Amino acid sequence: MSSAPLSETLKAFVAIVGEANALTAASDIAPYLVESRGLYHGSSPLVLKPGSTQEVSAIMALASRTGTPIVPAGGRTGHVGGQVPRDGLSDVVLSLERMNRIREIDISGDVIVADGGAILADIQKAAAEHNRLFPLSLGSEGSCRIGGNLSTNAGGTAVLAYGNVRQLCLGLEVVLPTGEIWDGLRRLKKDNSGYDLRDLFIGAEGTLGIITGAVLKLFPRPRGHQVAFVGLASPGDALALFERASTLCGSALTGFEIMPRIGIDFTTKHIAGVRDPLPSAHPWYALIDISTSDSAETAERMIASLLEETHDTGLVKDAVIASSLAQQEAFWRLRESMSDAQKPEGGSIKHDVSVPVSSVPRFLADANAAVMARMPEARIVSFGHLGDGNIHYNISQPIGADKAAFIARWREMNAIVHAVVHAHGGSISAEHGVGQLKRDELAASRPVIETELMKRIKLAFDPAGIMNPGKMVSTQ
Amino acid sequence: MSSAPLSETLKAFVAIVGEANALTAASDIAPYLVESRGLYHGSSPLVLKPGSTQEVSAIMALASRTGTPIVPAGGRTGHVGGQVPRDGLSDVVLSLERMNRIREIDISGDVIVADGGAILADIQKAAAEHNRLFPLSLGSEGSCRIGGNLSTNAGGTAVLAYGNVRQLCLGLEVVLPTGEIWDGLRRLKKDNSGYDLRDLFIGAEGTLGIITGAVLKLFPRPRGHQVAFVGLASPGDALALFERASTLCGSALTGFEIMPRIGIDFTTKHIAGVRDPLPSAHPWYALIDISTSDSAETAERMIASLLEETHDTGLVKDAVIASSLAQQEAFWRLRESMSDAQKPEGGSIKHDVSVPVSSVPRFLADANAAVMARMPEARIVSFGHLGDGNIHYNISQPIGADKAAFIARWREMNAIVHAVVHAHGGSISAEHGVGQLKRDELAASRPVIETELMKRIKLAFDPAGIMNPGKMVSTQ
Repeated sequence: MSSAPLSETLKAFVAIVGEANALTAASDIAPYLVESRGLYHGSSPLVLKPGSTQEVSAIMALASRTGTPIVPAGGRTGHVGGQVPRDGLSDVVLSLERMNRIREIDISGDVIVADGGAILADIQKAAAEHNRLFPLSLGSEGSCRIGGNLSTNAGGTAVLAYGNVRQLCLGLEVVLPTGEIWDGLRRLKKDNSGYDLRDLFIGAEGTLGIITGAVLKLFPRPRGHQVAFVGLASPGDALALFERASTLCGSALTGFEIMPRIGIDFTTKHIAGVRDPLPSAHPWYALIDISTSDSAETAERMIASLLEETHDTGLVKDAVIASSLAQQEAFWRLRESMSDAQKPEGGSIKHDVSVPVSSVPRFLADANAAVMARMPEARIVSFGHLGDGNIHYNISQPIGADKAAFIARWREMNAIVHAVVHAHGGSISAEHGVGQLKRDELAASRPVIETELMKRIKLAFDPAGIMNPGKMVSTQ
Repeated sequence: MSSAPLSETLKAFVAIVGEANALTAASDIAPYLVESRGLYHGSSPLVLKPGSTQEVSAIMALASRTGTPIVPAGGRTGHVGGQVPRDGLSDVVLSLERMNRIREIDISGDVIVADGGAILADIQKAAAEHNRLFPLSLGSEGSCRIGGNLSTNAGGTAVLAYGNVRQLCLGLEVVLPTGEIWDGLRRLKKDNSGYDLRDLFIGAEGTLGIITGAVLKLFPRPRGHQVAFVGLASPGDALALFERASTLCGSALTGFEIMPRIGIDFTTKHIAGVRDPLPSAHPWYALIDISTSDSAETAERMIASLLEETHDTGLVKDAVIASSLAQQEAFWRLRESMSDAQKPEGGSIKHDVSVPVSSVPRFLADANAAVMARMPEARIVSFGHLGDGNIHYNISQPIGADKAAFIARWREMNAIVHAVVHAHGGSISAEHGVGQLKRDELAASRPVIETELMKRIKLAFDPAGIMNPGKMVSTQ
């Protein structure tokens, strides 16, 4: 428990939360200084764990008076370094982990009100206990916290039907850099009474204030759920099938994922228990997920009639509808283990990109051509949320290549792929956010005036620059 | 055509658009100085009609250099004075009426790109010609313009299924107060690459910049459409029916409107050709609108099974499903003429309010009690979008009362109703916006820090205060 003696300022911070809720030993602080992929490592003399919005407010008021930089931390599951303090400086970490309550569930109003530090899975569970659905769902849902989900405008697997978390939030409570509390915990579907502050804080990665509470929308729990696995000739056919599925199923279409044959090869080879659901090989595959709120039969009927029609027209080459819950899960497991299945094949250079949905086939063709021109033996494993235009464009190393030499070409390959993304009017930061990882690349690629407006907003909210400094936008 | 000679500055503005596109005669300018209800009257020496984003940019650059206030004007159909220049000053009006083009329709991408001055009905028509739906629909759609719809975050009759126009917009082009152009014309479903500037400009009533272009979402045109008219015992039963309809129909539920018996009495009495669709009277009514994209039969089946089930349980007292397109239109006409039907009954004091959907029955009970306590003979005609929590809470004058004396109590009754709205966590500006009408009342009723943040944003974007000054938020 040895550590440098605290300054008077840091002692004043500790006094706000009490010694039991402040970490000062280097070994206790260490987990707050890294992120899961090991890309960033920061430094901090102090981690504060406030227990209430009022304590967060007192911390920020003191930070504002003393010019102390504060880094808000939720579940710390982000991939872009947004939650990691700067290295070599003395940023104080403010963790919301103790503010993890469900404040209220209003069933007739279909809203849940939660602390910013509430764990996503706890919110899902509370909704389910009241026969409701909170649809945000991510790989990290067991540990990520809703304040972080909101601050990064999290996506996940339910975006197609329910939108990003931005669409799932009606109101916010935010502690500003000055310590003032904005009570915007509204529950209204319609409210045109001022500038849209809510959507400004959502996705701001804690650089404009700290989200300490949120009003979230609940939905009916689906009664019917069905999953199909479909063999296709090309991404173009996948797009045509998606468009038909959207028309026939409307908001019941809750998932439309695509995978290339190489991804099925890797997955069936490396992931225990996974097998190819179809008897023969196809160049591309789609996973179609249908959820219906009225009855289980509707989901069955919808998916069967979609596949019947599109098989008759030749669009669908082969298809299988899950015959059990276990098989539904197996289909999804195949899709979800696609990234892990690349690991035994060596290094993988990854991209978090989106393009307009209708441009996905052309984007894939152009990106593949550009990548193969530079690295003819590259094995491209591009899969993901076709319905959102969001593709995990991963490149596995050539067979027999040296992993380190391959990974050393990360930025080179990024530049090639990102150029194709820009040519298609896409985003090189679809889902994971900006943080430290993409701050400067985005500043270089977005319109100059846009970065300028971002800086002006940052300065208007945080003139002293103490709120998660160095993330999202540089004000230097 | 007589008018005061123009200053050198005003002449420079005219030179940007050409004399043919500048109005300087008082008689030509007059229509730009009023709004439809006659509540506001302003003054202006000049109306400019730029023909391109570049001309708008040049106007704002000059305005910025010369400190000239600019009032953007679209279709000028707003009800809160947002488009009316200040009185007694020399604000220049910038009308987008010549920038009325559909720039592009991308059918496979399901987007339409339009100038800020494109008329809403023209956008709807262009979408329909390509077998698509642009769902924003308002009474003024024949003359309102999309830049104004976006600047006021317009609602209308399709909000239940499709959201306000905020949810229908993927990207914007905005000319800033400095004349700089922000090209944010993106077409992406997922993009977490910076602060959400788009949603900040949407609903800002032209006080942060001028929306000169927009990327809008298109949807499949419904193949099935059916409307039912239902007799109910109470607003509480209407809420229960709405909840059941949401569960059974999902996104196919495209309208759920409620009306009280007195509204049916007024409408059948005063509107030619309107008749009560049901054989006996009920205290309350609901209009249910279902649209389905897969087939016409689905809409028929859904509405029939909803009504069968809810009639069996006693929730629905009586119901009729439209037997023809003409009858569908007649049901909607009954609802849409409710406000006009109040006119022959004398004065009407109106409120544009929203509360959480589940609070509508309690809000109505509390508001009615508060109004009747002060004015026992008041005739309350409260109707509207139950599914959005948005009620047109209108009070018709007591029988035989003096109209002027009744209307003189407008603010008194507003205060009573708005207090009940606030008690239910509602908004006193649900749909029509802030403009001049509600600027100061909202500043007095929303949290102080919220108005402070709005002022800071306004100053960050428009430090000289030339962009639609006096609207939305006072920076004094």
